Order: sequence, then structure tokens, then C-alpha cells
Amino acid sequence: MLFQSLIERKRDGGTLTAAEWRESLEAYLRDEIPDYQMAAMLMAIMARGMETEELATLTEVMRNSGATLQWPEGTGPRVDKHSTGGVGDKVSLVLAPLVASCGVLVPMMSGRGLGHTGGTTDKLEAIPGFRTDLTLAEVQAQVERIGVAMFGQSREVAPVDARLYALRDVTGTVPSIPLIAASIMSKKLAETLTGLVLDVKVGSGAFMPRSEDAVALAQAMVRIGVARGCRTTALVTAMDRPLGRAIGNALEVEEALLAIEGRGPADLMLLTRALAVEMLVLAGTDADRAGATRRVNDAIASGRAMAKFRELIVAQGGNPAIVEEPGLLPQAAEVELFEAPAAATVAHIDPRPLGQAVVEMGGGRRRLDDLIDHSVGFIVSARPGAKVARGEPIASVFARDPAGIAIGLAALTEAIRFGPAEPGLPLISHRVTAAGVEAL
Amino acid sequence: MLFQSLIERKRDGGTLTAAEWRESLEAYLRDEIPDYQMAAMLMAIMARGMETEELATLTEVMRNSGATLQWPEGTGPRVDKHSTGGVGDKVSLVLAPLVASCGVLVPMMSGRGLGHTGGTTDKLEAIPGFRTDLTLAEVQAQVERIGVAMFGQSREVAPVDARLYALRDVTGTVPSIPLIAASIMSKKLAETLTGLVLDVKVGSGAFMPRSEDAVALAQAMVRIGVARGCRTTALVTAMDRPLGRAIGNALEVEEALLAIEGRGPADLMLLTRALAVEMLVLAGTDADRAGATRRVNDAIASGRAMAKFRELIVAQGGNPAIVEEPGLLPQAAEVELFEAPAAATVAHIDPRPLGQAVVEMGGGRRRLDDLIDHSVGFIVSARPGAKVARGEPIASVFARDPAGIAIGLAALTEAIRFGPAEPGLPLISHRVTAAGVEAL
Repeated sequence: MLFQSLIERKRDGGTLTAAEWRESLEAYLRDEIPDYQMAAMLMAIMARGMETEELATLTEVMRNSGATLQWPEGTGPRVDKHSTGGVGDKVSLVLAPLVASCGVLVPMMSGRGLGHTGGTTDKLEAIPGFRTDLTLAEVQAQVERIGVAMFGQSREVAPVDARLYALRDVTGTVPSIPLIAASIMSKKLAETLTGLVLDVKVGSGAFMPRSEDAVALAQAMVRIGVARGCRTTALVTAMDRPLGRAIGNALEVEEALLAIEGRGPADLMLLTRALAVEMLVLAGTDADRAGATRRVNDAIASGRAMAKFRELIVAQGGNPAIVEEPGLLPQAAEVELFEAPAAATVAHIDPRPLGQAVVEMGGGRRRLDDLIDHSVGFIVSARPGAKVARGEPIASVFARDPAGIAIGLAALTEAIRFGPAEPGLPLISHRVTAAGVEAL
Repeated sequence: MLFQSLIERKRDGGTLTAAEWRESLEAYLRDEIPDYQMAAMLMAIMARGMETEELATLTEVMRNSGATLQWPEGTGPRVDKHSTGGVGDKVSLVLAPLVASCGVLVPMMSGRGLGHTGGTTDKLEAIPGFRTDLTLAEVQAQVERIGVAMFGQSREVAPVDARLYALRDVTGTVPSIPLIAASIMSKKLAETLTGLVLDVKVGSGAFMPRSEDAVALAQAMVRIGVARGCRTTALVTAMDRPLGRAIGNALEVEEALLAIEGRGPADLMLLTRALAVEMLVLAGTDADRAGATRRVNDAIASGRAMAKFRELIVAQGGNPAIVEEPGLLPQAAEVELFEAPAAATVAHIDPRPLGQAVVEMGGGRRRLDDLIDHSVGFIVSARPGAKVARGEPIASVFARDPAGIAIGLAALTEAIRFGPAEPGLPLISHRVTAAGVEAL
């Protein structure tokens, strides 16, 4: 097999077979195919796209380049959720224990924050002692024991994806929908799930600002999952504003604790419940959606979800006392209120300047090996559409020092726009399943 | 300037400025831009194309990456011809002395043969002692002295083109029309010509089998030339059959000697005269085409063209006695006739098997540093449409040994198809100028 002839075929709109992808990626990992040839292939994919079966094949080959979870015969339904990333998105922290407390196994693999979007493993590590670097063996044992594990992607999972991503990052081939879909799904399929729910964010704070791109990405991922025997559903959800009120690692854990008890902000509760219902439907716990909804509500109201979160914290070495005493989470040295400059209506809250400010304040990463300060961030209490009085506190900045406060106040000034109320995107705009795209 | 952002711009269909191309190619030559980024850029160009001004800019930057001919103030018109390559194409050997004998300066830069197509410098080197490795200073002095020089492309001309071509060759980005056009034109513009005639071959033996691609390439090159102050005309000409009767280096020199005296095969004479007239028109030697045609015919008939060829051979160290005694050219050890297997009409002569056989017989190159045997090749005396008798000799094979003869006979059997006469492509199908495409 000559890789050059495969580049030419893809360049001309053709497809590669499973054997061709497997041999190519194996040769690439052995440094037998040079980066310049792979870069040409990636750009050809960028220009020509991939059909479903070829894309599923590529994803499977990427998955099989590394270790995978191998569940014993007879293990029950295993469902994970993946978000494409946003600002204030602490859903996973609520969802994993919630769904596990409904009797579904939840092996939840998450990423670190990079750029303006936060990452679930960073948020979890705001909990003193919490370990996210579990081995796959530890994940499996813990899921079998308590029904849930939350862990970072290790090097043993889909190693070719990390190589390809590093190359895409410098060759203008990141925003290819098939390549994004293959990258995400290769890691998710490594969990050997029976079901997967995708939360594809859309809007100015998301990787995909345009709704049609978000829907296309959702469709690509759903098709890959379905083609490889994993029931997959995607919701396309709003990221033109932050989700909930808290932005920043420790602050988001605190908000998640409220949400697990049913006391979180309305948008966070609504989205978390919707994703939980999708997960239960895929797992088959209930005959219908209404039953699944009742089960979710009961898990929250009964405290079973919170008990599961506590159990999870203990299992992964964290201090469970944060549940009763959130003040044990890292606390910022400086806090300052942000007041409305005039009586007005909040027209829009742009998530991106706030996410970027968290990075600048030391709470996020520019590079994957940056160390972070979990305490910094924002609470934005005003929501879009709210009428506020002059001088009314509508947000707070949490920082390490006065310089961080200044960064945070400037970001709030940039992010919060006053004026006539703007409609904003629907919180959940589409459901994408094997059957097609449903606008909600 | 971040090269990655330029890749992204090209990927999205944008254009780069002259400064961006210049800085990028300079950085690439200094190894500050890695091959994998350049490969992604090349594939993006492949997918998105280039507009005329950007393409002319890229070409100029490539030209300026190396040495160029610098003619003194007041130097007269300088016209070259370039062919995209074919089988039996010895036109340059006839054309350069012919046009120079009409009073036009002809600095003619040529390539070596590679693959099934021959190269003019290889053919010239069949002449004992003939040097093609002139420096640009030698070229300039010789053109000023005798009006013509024929030389190979040295490393000092457009060095970035060689780097880019090597990368294109392994990344599936060779057949991009803008990249082919820029590669050819960057070298031609290094001659600082006032006029350029392009012979773009079309058909099974050419790099461009399809007429629309050949016309598109012709247009791209004409636009580059015109945009950079070099009057440029292209003819699209047939390469669905060999040009003339001789194929192979020494055999083609012998046929060229006949043609310079006006005794060459009809197709060779017709094409050579047509290209010569275009060159004279660009140089402005005559008020009209009819005058240029008379001048060309007179140069042949008077023997001035042959005298100029003799002068050229002497100037470049070759043995001029080959003009009177072609037997001084390298002679093949073995010669064998190929006879028509039945009474029939010659339907088609496929140039590609014959060009490939010359390589296999030792007369061409698989790699650019292969040494070659100038003596081997074919004379195919039957032309498409000819009625031949059973056992009639219609071709000859010239080889080093019986194994070479066997290769040659097999190639003739493959290449010559008998049956109802096929129309074939018109010898000259299009003329492309700044004014547009003219079907002939």
C-alpha cells in the first residue's frame, strides 16, 4: 500500500477501506508515513469530506489504536455523555451521579479545559484530593462497584488521535466536521458503551457558532455511533450565553452541588434533566420518556443523586465534606461586585470574554500542561432579559489579586450588553437521532 | 506572519499577498516552515485553486528565489518556447536555431526526460561533446554572441520550485493546474524574456490527457506571463500519437537535422513552423503572420537555420560533423524491423508504451540521476491512417542487446493498433493568447 495513492484517491473524492485506514494509521504511529503526507491527507479530507461508513471505519481504527474498556459478559447498559464544550458547562458533575443513581452504569471520560472553554476534569480537581487520572482498570472496577467513574483521557486511549490532533492544530485542518467527529467518537467508543448522549453546543461561546454546523457535527457523530453499535442521541444546545451562573472551577462545583439537590439555576436544571432523560431512554430503564423523567426527578428529590456524588468523591480520593461545607473548596483571595452602570435591561451575556478572562486570571489553560488556580471565576447572577437598577450588583469576580479583579471587571464590561431584550438561541434547539434531525 | 493562518485563509478560498508569499517561501527555504504545513497549503491550493493575480505573484516570488538572466539595456526581443512534454517531441532542436537564424534572441532552457516523455537536454547530449550545463553567465554571453543557447535548468534557477516539486510529488498535489503553471512559468520568467510560446500537449502521451485541462493549463500560463510583462501565446497540440517518426535521443537528433533542412516528417514540419511563426510574431520581426511565415520558410530553404544549428553545436562544445555525417551520433548495437502482421490500416499509435519502452531499453530515466544510452529507440515509419501490406516493415527498434529488441517489439505490438482509421486529435487544436482561447 502506497499512502500517496490513498491521498490521491481522497483528493479525488474517493474512499479508503478499513484495511487501508488501519495500515495507514499504524504506519503513521510507527513514523513510516511522514507528517507532510498525513497533512496533505487531512487537508484533502477537509476539502472532500467523508461518507458515513468510511468515517465510522476511520473512527473505529482510531479507537482500536489504544486501550479500550472491556466489560464482562452480562454487564448492564453503560451510557456516557459528551459535551463539545462551553462556558459554565458543569452539567457532567450533576449528570454522572444523577444517572448512576438511577441504576445506569456511567463511565464518564472527560477532557481538560483548553482556551476559553472549561473542562470537567479541572472542575473535579477543585475538590481537594479528587483524582481524575484513573487507569482503565480502575475505571472498570469502580464502575462495577459503585456505578460511576469520572476520569480524564489518558495516553492509552486512542493515541493516534493525539498525534493527528497536534498535526491538525498547525495545518489548518481542525474545523473539519468529519475529523472532529472521529476524534470525539474514537475516545467515546473506547469506553465500549451501549449508549451515548452528545451535547453539541452552538453559539458564540461554542466551537461551532453556526447552528447548521452544530447540527452537521451532531449528525456525523450520531451516524458513527449507530454504525458501530452504540445507540447515540445528540441534543444541540445554546452556548450564546454562559450556562448557569457560575464560571470557574470551584465556583462551578459549588453550583453543581446545588443542582444535584434540584436547587440550581433554571437553565442548568432543564438541560441536565433533558440529558439525563436521554441517557435513561438509551439505557432502557423506563418504558417511556415520562417514566424516565419521573425517575430523574425522584433521584434528585430523594437525595439519591447527592448520595451517589458523595460516594463518587470518596471513591476517587476527594474530600466528601465539601458536600455539606462548600467553603472547603478553594476560595479566591479577592472578591468584587460588578454593578449595573444604569437602569437597563440585560440584552446579552457573551460567554467568550468571560471564559477567556478565567484563563487570564489563572483558572484555565493556554497550554495543556499549564497549572491552574481553581478558585478564580465569576458568578453572573443577572440573566439575559432581566431588568436591573442602576448600581444593582449583577455579577461577582473571584480572583487571586487586584490585577485579576481588574481583568474580571473588564471582561464583565465587555460581555454584558444592555439594551432591548434579545431572543437568544433556544436552550435545546434540536434532537438528532438515527432517525434524523428533530427541531425542538 | 503565522503560516498557519495563511493555510486557513487559502483553505477557505482566500488569497495571499505578494509579501505573504515571499515571506512564506523564504521561510520555507530556510526550513522555518515545516514540510507538513507546506503540504497542507499545497493540498488547499489543489482544492481551492488560485486567481490570476495571486498565481502571478506566487510565480514571481518563485522566480525571484533564484538567479535570473539580466539583459543589458537595449537588448532586442528574447523569445523562448516551452513544451509540456511528449513522445518524439524534438521540436526544440529545430526551433531554437531556426528562430535565432531569423534574428530573434533565443535563450532556450529545457528539462531532462523523466518517465515516458523525453527531454531536450538529453537529446542534445546525444551529440558528442555537447554541453548543456551552461551557467547563466555563459548563456547570456552566448546569446549575445550567436543569438541562441540551449541549456538545462540549473539549481540556481527558481530553487524553491525544486523543493516544492519534491513535496508535491509525494503528497498527491502534482496535478494542480495553478501549481503546474507556476512551476513552469517561474523558470521561464527567470530568463527575463520579452515573449514566450507554450506548446501544451494533449492526449494519452501527454501529462494532460483531456483537452479542457490542457486549455486550462495554457490559459493559466498565458495569464501569468501577461500579468508579469512577458507576451505569451500557447498552442494546444496533439500527443495522442508520437510526433514525427523518431523516438529516442540520437534518432531524434537525426530527424531534427532533416527537419532543419525542411525534409522532416509532415507533422513535425507543420508544428515547428507554427511555433516559429508565433515566436516571430511575439518578437515583432514582421508586420504580419504571412511575413513571419515567409521568413521562416526562407531560413530553412536558404540553409541559414542549419548554419545556426552548426554554430550552436560548436559554441557548446559539440562535434559539428554530425550535421554532414549523422552516423557519428551514437549507434545502437542491434536493429530489428517490425513488420505488419496482416494487411490492415494503422488505426492508432499510442505514444505512451513507446516512451516507456525507451526508458526500459536504457534510453530514459526512472530517476533524475540515471545515466542513459542515447542510441536506443524507435523509428515508426507508418502513420495513423496508413494502409499496410502483410509483412511490410512499418517500424524499427534500436537497442543495446536482444533483450532490448524484445522490449521494443513488445512495445510496438502494444502501441500500434490496426482497424478502421480513427480521426485522432487535430495537430494544433487551440491558440491561447491574452485575448482568449481560439479553437483552430
